[in-house]
Amino acid sequence: MSKLRVVSFGLGPIGVRAAQLALSRKNLELVGAIDIDPGKAGKDLGELFDPKVRTGLEIDSDLAVLDRLKPDAVLHCTSSFMPMVKDQLIEICKRGIDIISSTEELLVPDLQHPDIAKAVDAAAKAGGATVLGTGVNPGFAMDFMAIVASAVMYSVKRVRCVRVVDAGTRRLPLQKKVGAGMTTAEFEAQKKTGRFGHIGMRESVALIARALGFAIDKNEQTLEPVLATEERKTQFLTVHKGHVAGIRNIGRGIKGTDTIIELDLSMYVGAPNTRDEMHLEGEPNVDVMFAGGIPGDIATAAILVNSIAQVVAASPGLKTVLDVAPPRVSA
Amino acid sequence: MSKLRVVSFGLGPIGVRAAQLALSRKNLELVGAIDIDPGKAGKDLGELFDPKVRTGLEIDSDLAVLDRLKPDAVLHCTSSFMPMVKDQLIEICKRGIDIISSTEELLVPDLQHPDIAKAVDAAAKAGGATVLGTGVNPGFAMDFMAIVASAVMYSVKRVRCVRVVDAGTRRLPLQKKVGAGMTTAEFEAQKKTGRFGHIGMRESVALIARALGFAIDKNEQTLEPVLATEERKTQFLTVHKGHVAGIRNIGRGIKGTDTIIELDLSMYVGAPNTRDEMHLEGEPNVDVMFAGGIPGDIATAAILVNSIAQVVAASPGLKTVLDVAPPRVSA
Repeated sequence: MSKLRVVSFGLGPIGVRAAQLALSRKNLELVGAIDIDPGKAGKDLGELFDPKVRTGLEIDSDLAVLDRLKPDAVLHCTSSFMPMVKDQLIEICKRGIDIISSTEELLVPDLQHPDIAKAVDAAAKAGGATVLGTGVNPGFAMDFMAIVASAVMYSVKRVRCVRVVDAGTRRLPLQKKVGAGMTTAEFEAQKKTGRFGHIGMRESVALIARALGFAIDKNEQTLEPVLATEERKTQFLTVHKGHVAGIRNIGRGIKGTDTIIELDLSMYVGAPNTRDEMHLEGEPNVDVMFAGGIPGDIATAAILVNSIAQVVAASPGLKTVLDVAPPRVSA
Repeated sequence: MSKLRVVSFGLGPIGVRAAQLALSRKNLELVGAIDIDPGKAGKDLGELFDPKVRTGLEIDSDLAVLDRLKPDAVLHCTSSFMPMVKDQLIEICKRGIDIISSTEELLVPDLQHPDIAKAVDAAAKAGGATVLGTGVNPGFAMDFMAIVASAVMYSVKRVRCVRVVDAGTRRLPLQKKVGAGMTTAEFEAQKKTGRFGHIGMRESVALIARALGFAIDKNEQTLEPVLATEERKTQFLTVHKGHVAGIRNIGRGIKGTDTIIELDLSMYVGAPNTRDEMHLEGEPNVDVMFAGGIPGDIATAAILVNSIAQVVAASPGLKTVLDVAPPRVSA
């Protein structure tokens, strides 16, 4: 079997982890790395893993390098938001290169950005490329796994997922994203930007609703701070007592007055009893538990890399995790 | 969306349940039913659900009826063994009709029957048909779910699944298959036929090994009777104290002297603490639990029906559950 040639685009914490993982896989060959940060350009990719590591791969700052590298797929980890990545995706699609992206909004691309979804799908089909947005959440823990669990059921009436994450064990950008260390006033100000907290809750609700044929009238979410009851320190920051430790984010798919999808996410520094649960009410009931929870940063990088071969095998177009063969470790 | 036209072929307990479920689904239209048992031919399919039910679908005994019905897909539930179904599958493939089959050996078609697999694949490609073997076990509980759980991992070293089923709640053929009510002498005689007990354990081990890139040297299984410690009655039969209540069947994938896959199935009348567990050792460890277990008879019928749309959408050929989009309830 010939190896799939992969380029990593976007070298933040998730992109770096994904690149590192791709390097370790026998069925993949990492042939390049790109980041638009000029401070990274010219460095050896290995320096982002560890100051002493060298990979022989020099970081480029321009997508034009793809013409030379001719990869089969790009691991795309640049932004959570479709308007920020639209041009990047189209540029890559034009070259006929498949994309596995961590962009949260891509999980259900036409939910918030139908025009961008249409443009990316058209570019993908024209270029003969496949585009998939995935990750652990959205993409697995609070949507895909519940949908796959429905496979053994006659019918589903209601879905409830619970995810409890100790943000203290996660990467710095995630700790910041959940407001760890902020005052409540800072939290409320950030919340108003709409680009704060966990991104992708509406997409998870929508994916479940579409997959299971739930005709929901409303796709809503609430976002509240969880306050620290005592001082808590992480590798990166300190949360003072009474300040924000993180978030409670609840997504709801509502039909009439009935909440038929409830996705309950707690992500804060010091959260106890971390876990992932999927409860499906129907014929019969199915209850799934990931003991201790699905470890977030590892899981997101893993699921991107674990989707490469399936995306390369899929037909061209903008896909969802429901359209391609399921992700898995492949040595 | 136009409905997918479906024919049920094989009207044993699983086939009947699958037909009933297909009838209830808005995205499917059950257009026919076939069974080779002449005692069923000419009856209304509904009579197999309940003596008073009528569906307007007359049971046929010959595959030739497919020429008239022109379905998109056949739900195929006739036998566990590939040599028994080879001609059936090829006949259906020739007509360009997709097949979702409960034949356990089809989970990894080339494991025990590479020649049949080749012939069916060729017929499928020539006819433009897709063929998939699936079910709850093999097909989900002790293989597919563990493989999908690996999606969130960097690497997997070892897989252990535990499935405990109370056979007393299952269909009569399953109770017979696990030897419920037999003496130990009868059990040992049956065991020698090689067509007794749970079918598909080797296929589950092989699916995991191939999916995760485990180079195993041996794919072995042990099958032992579980004896009743007191008299136990089911809807269908009585197990006397000291007689066989069911089976303990353990599949092992062994590399050198190391068991890297262990699938531990207990299926007997009165089994307590029914459950499904998937334990993946690696980076990081992942532990999944289906509380109470995945209900077997419902699950097998469900997963067949819940795979129809994905099989119809897939490209022609003989596929495995790793090649097509994941199964799910679709209303």
